[in-house]
Amino acid sequence: MLLKHSIPISVRYCETDAMGFVHHSNYLNYFELGRTELFRAQGGNYRRMEELEMFLVVVKFQIHYRKPARYDDQLVLHSTITRLTTARIEHAYKLMRDAELLCSAESTIACVDSDGEPRRIPENLSEITRVQ
Amino acid sequence: MLLKHSIPISVRYCETDAMGFVHHSNYLNYFELGRTELFRAQGGNYRRMEELEMFLVVVKFQIHYRKPARYDDQLVLHSTITRLTTARIEHAYKLMRDAELLCSAESTIACVDSDGEPRRIPENLSEITRVQ
Amino acid sequence: MLLKHSIPISVRYCETDAMGFVHHSNYLNYFELGRTELFRAQGGNYRRMEELEMFLVVVKFQIHYRKPARYDDQLVLHSTITRLTTARIEHAYKLMRDAELLCSAESTIACVDSDGEPRRIPENLSEITRVQ
Amino acid sequence: MLLKHSIPISVRYCETDAMGFVHHSNYLNYFELGRTELFRAQGGNYRRMEELEMFLVVVKFQIHYRKPARYDDQLVLHSTITRLTTARIEHAYKLMRDAELLCSAESTIACVDSDGEPRRIPENLSEITRVQ
Repeated sequence: MLLKHSIPISVRYCETDAMGFVHHSNYLNYFELGRTELFRAQGGNYRRMEELEMFLVVVKFQIHYRKPARYDDQLVLHSTITRLTTARIEHAYKLMRDAELLCSAESTIACVDSDGEPRRIPENLSEITRVQ
Repeated sequence: MLLKHSIPISVRYCETDAMGFVHHSNYLNYFELGRTELFRAQGGNYRRMEELEMFLVVVKFQIHYRKPARYDDQLVLHSTITRLTTARIEHAYKLMRDAELLCSAESTIACVDSDGEPRRIPENLSEITRVQ
Repeated sequence: MLLKHSIPISVRYCETDAMGFVHHSNYLNYFELGRTELFRAQGGNYRRMEELEMFLVVVKFQIHYRKPARYDDQLVLHSTITRLTTARIEHAYKLMRDAELLCSAESTIACVDSDGEPRRIPENLSEITRVQ
Repeated sequence: MLLKHSIPISVRYCETDAMGFVHHSNYLNYFELGRTELFRAQGGNYRRMEELEMFLVVVKFQIHYRKPARYDDQLVLHSTITRLTTARIEHAYKLMRDAELLCSAESTIACVDSDGEPRRIPENLSEITRVQ
């Protein structure tokens, strides 16, 4: 199974704040894109997953902001699955501008059903959510 | 029925952009607060409305940005219902900083059910959505 | 001069709301991307423009929401310059999902200096902001 | 010096996502409000601080999401300064819905000048940024 994936991120104007840099809350949206696209690269599809009543919820996030990003910066986000159990998926992220590391982070996500009750994460998740 | 209502708006840092002002997309969020609080002041409750499978969707918006707002500005938003039919609700908004008009807008919203199909807006909407 | 440009838009999860659709404020961010990328396709660069102390501010927006967009929808945004004077630029936008028109809009933007004072828009704007 | 402060948070519709809950990135905006209002309660003013060329930047964040928040939930955010040096300020946050803990977090922020260079945090920060 593919455990690493990289995507380009182009900083939008609406993501900046009055300090002239990307507001720190927006990095979480970048990381979400990274996770989702890693899953797509594995063959899975998160939209299909929700149609099957499996919802991924964020349980923990640790973010280390190192250098600011600016409007129109062309970044690369590297996302890695670092641990995968039937209850939890852990990711690590590195957001780069060329060779510079701007931000690193780790997250833990869990799977719940439509009532918010914990669900076992199926082993063949990317297969059963594949979109033809 | 109450047709006008005013609320204070305190500009959040995350709402500003690199130009140092509130990003123009965030005004729509202020106007949504204005509409919702006007409805609450009438005795209605929008969360209850969604529980009853009535969803208000925005059909049209016209916004006239006159002067910029900055972080931590203490603004007042005046919201008015200008037209009310069984199919549409029209609002007008004025966002003020003291006596200065920063932004004015008009919106048209409609009511749909959970399948997105148009629904008649009940006359006694605030009564049937009242939260005890 | 190029007056039309199209870009793909992939709906992010953070752009949806509890109704299950893209929150109406986020369309303004899509349109901003459309304007900026049209300018880039002309050879200009908005980040460079701000470095030269020219800031584009939104004066008016009219938006007509026709059909909702959902998470992970693959959309196409068509942006067109409909009028261009030394004081104002007017754009029209069409946001499509395949052949379906989801949202159309028109905006008027003006140019200001770093004090917020109106500035003449130079005729050769894309040339003087070109990034090598 | 005041080290603890609590503010009410009313969940806005635009802060929810398609899962029906507050999107996890928005909690960072709540925490920013909490920090800023704690500073105001101490007599300081963050807007004034930026006018004096002191900018607070987030260095680290750890967030533990425990239970989801929904649209129109009336929450209370408790913010505490847990450590204060001339280089760093550490905060802890607890976001509550009545007696339920929804989310807890810790952050580290630093002070930089307008060039992004680290600055010593003055001891009398709330005094020198006081707005009459």
